[in-house]
Amino acid sequence: MSEVPDGFVALDRPGDYLELFGPLYRSGDPAIRNVIAMRAQKKHLNLRGIVHGGALASLIDTAFGITLWRTAEEKISTVTVGLAMDYLEPAKEGDWIEAHVDVLRIGRRLAFVEGLLLVGDRKVLRANGTFAVVEPRKQ
Amino acid sequence: MSEVPDGFVALDRPGDYLELFGPLYRSGDPAIRNVIAMRAQKKHLNLRGIVHGGALASLIDTAFGITLWRTAEEKISTVTVGLAMDYLEPAKEGDWIEAHVDVLRIGRRLAFVEGLLLVGDRKVLRANGTFAVVEPRKQ
Amino acid sequence: MSEVPDGFVALDRPGDYLELFGPLYRSGDPAIRNVIAMRAQKKHLNLRGIVHGGALASLIDTAFGITLWRTAEEKISTVTVGLAMDYLEPAKEGDWIEAHVDVLRIGRRLAFVEGLLLVGDRKVLRANGTFAVVEPRKQ
Amino acid sequence: MSEVPDGFVALDRPGDYLELFGPLYRSGDPAIRNVIAMRAQKKHLNLRGIVHGGALASLIDTAFGITLWRTAEEKISTVTVGLAMDYLEPAKEGDWIEAHVDVLRIGRRLAFVEGLLLVGDRKVLRANGTFAVVEPRKQ
Repeated sequence: MSEVPDGFVALDRPGDYLELFGPLYRSGDPAIRNVIAMRAQKKHLNLRGIVHGGALASLIDTAFGITLWRTAEEKISTVTVGLAMDYLEPAKEGDWIEAHVDVLRIGRRLAFVEGLLLVGDRKVLRANGTFAVVEPRKQ
Repeated sequence: MSEVPDGFVALDRPGDYLELFGPLYRSGDPAIRNVIAMRAQKKHLNLRGIVHGGALASLIDTAFGITLWRTAEEKISTVTVGLAMDYLEPAKEGDWIEAHVDVLRIGRRLAFVEGLLLVGDRKVLRANGTFAVVEPRKQ
Repeated sequence: MSEVPDGFVALDRPGDYLELFGPLYRSGDPAIRNVIAMRAQKKHLNLRGIVHGGALASLIDTAFGITLWRTAEEKISTVTVGLAMDYLEPAKEGDWIEAHVDVLRIGRRLAFVEGLLLVGDRKVLRANGTFAVVEPRKQ
Repeated sequence: MSEVPDGFVALDRPGDYLELFGPLYRSGDPAIRNVIAMRAQKKHLNLRGIVHGGALASLIDTAFGITLWRTAEEKISTVTVGLAMDYLEPAKEGDWIEAHVDVLRIGRRLAFVEGLLLVGDRKVLRANGTFAVVEPRKQ
């Protein structure tokens, strides 16, 4: 098993938390703006030996923010207002977990997204997020 | 600022993910079973310099599971089915963040909880969780 | 069983939907701004003979909006952005169902609330709501 | 504007609440098991003159239950455990509102669904639901 599947590249500028938690990957195809992935490692496991719920939350929350940043026509910056998740099946060490995000609506003040975490075609988590649209982040 | 306020003790048996993410603390008073806390560190910050949404999710999800474990009359084991959070205010480096959990109902198959993350009396996050009750974890 | 417990008065200006769905009641004590109630009737029942999930959603959503209106120092108008509910126990015909609402935060753009539906001291539903703060409603 | 678009038929056996609230319609095509609709009427409006949040909740909750009933290979009966909704845009009197439901997973104890309310191609509401799988309903 290779660490990172073909077509994925490391996420640049991850920030402190994602350096701890990651590495995370995005599609290398610039047309695909809504897929973020990671390899589940031993460090992500809870006492039961499956990936911790907080680790899956960290992945989908990050994927939501990045997809909004990459999708909006004018670059916007967003902060999480609400995040809700249903845990459908456990993820295990070694799983390549992909977040696939749908942008439902980007309004003037709020943006709405939903997404799935997939391991192959297995649905691990369903999520929806609400984000406040704030002034653009300084580059 | 002392690292850990009086009355808190380190959580034992955290598992791999909480070793990475933590340390987490619980009240040292055995009568207080529903308070879990952490000190926000640089490693928890996102690019904006506030605590990452996934870090807060990790704290509250852990607090929910531990409180259910410590509260149920017969020891039960639970797995997260649903977790939903509203982010009320940002948390910053150095903040002592306490999760306060309310158990709403422990049924035969499902348990329901809600909780707040507090920094002093400031509400940082509101959350609710649904857990499946499964056979007790082996000790 | 009297239809309406002492201390409750009919909600004025309910609008078309609440005329269909109601009647709803509020505490007659002007200091109690966060309790809205209804008597479960046959018309609220689903095929299983318990109160329909949409009826409970209608009650808590209404209670959230009214409590925000009555609580804010300057009168604000709000529209529902998000509503999430956990159904803890069924409600039955004849039950007097009270919504008890907590305002967590009223910000410049968003307001956050949570609440319970109670039948006596039995918790029937737990809910949280996110509301956009918009210009005040014309009187 | 005809009341009911071609291809839709009235929902049979609605129960008391849906008689009050409805009528609701399903696709007349037996292969389409996940679309439930209604015409927004004056009786569904709140004080602002838009469809009440509780009315939209009633529609999507009903659509979730019916889709699970019609989709499961062996007929199952389900009760709502959790329902969460984001309100993306208002619906107005006269709108034909269609619920489109996706079944994510039907497990032994829990079933997970998500869905949209659409007016034409306009997304009015996003929702997810968790249902407990109980013994089949008597016919």
